[in-house]
Amino acid sequence: MNTTEPTTSPALQVALEYHQAWTTGSIDQALELVATDVVCDAPRGRLTGIEAYRPFLANFQPLVLGYEMISALGDEETAVLVYELHTAPVTSALTCECFTVRDGQIIHNRLIFDQTPHAAATPAPSAPPSPQSS
Amino acid sequence: MNTTEPTTSPALQVALEYHQAWTTGSIDQALELVATDVVCDAPRGRLTGIEAYRPFLANFQPLVLGYEMISALGDEETAVLVYELHTAPVTSALTCECFTVRDGQIIHNRLIFDQTPHAAATPAPSAPPSPQSS
Repeated sequence: MNTTEPTTSPALQVALEYHQAWTTGSIDQALELVATDVVCDAPRGRLTGIEAYRPFLANFQPLVLGYEMISALGDEETAVLVYELHTAPVTSALTCECFTVRDGQIIHNRLIFDQTPHAAATPAPSAPPSPQSS
Repeated sequence: MNTTEPTTSPALQVALEYHQAWTTGSIDQALELVATDVVCDAPRGRLTGIEAYRPFLANFQPLVLGYEMISALGDEETAVLVYELHTAPVTSALTCECFTVRDGQIIHNRLIFDQTPHAAATPAPSAPPSPQSS
């Protein structure tokens, strides 16, 4: 598919601008498209509010090496992006973001990916130091 | 959203028929909408061909208790379904299926969900029997 084609979906327009911004490191620009009271359902649980969303995005972004867009579809209020995300720890991860958009801002993001490869790429925490015998 | 609305996307029409069939146990009916040489990218890896796809679907289906459709979007050749899937082991799992459809059949399905809750719900295999000392 060609995501540079103009879209008639206002929600998809917002989703693509948001995606372009955050994946290229423009976190502030991305967050301008996110509502203050955004709800994000991510594999590790629900985030509520932009103050929780900001570090979630900002801390993850430096790991991103690139992506391959597979599908970008939308209607009036909903947009879905499906892409292969390339990160430093996980070479390729199929990822879906399903956005609800209202008044030009993302009010709900459902983020879907398999955490398993990320968990496997993260070294297990080292054993705590042995208690000193007294 | 109302998924009973008529769709102008031929790919989405096929995806919704397929979804309705397999989630209600009509595996043969679902498989009529899947190409013989289907490719399925699932969290555990790639399946190729309908003979691999059939048991994948048939073995999983009995676990399904229901679903809540969140988004169903499509264009000429692509459809994406995002839904909360309710299964016996995992109460609610955000799931995305991204279909490529050609000539009325699914030729590629990219299935995205987090395996973590499923792994947590599956008892770890018991330890193998100790080797007998000779």
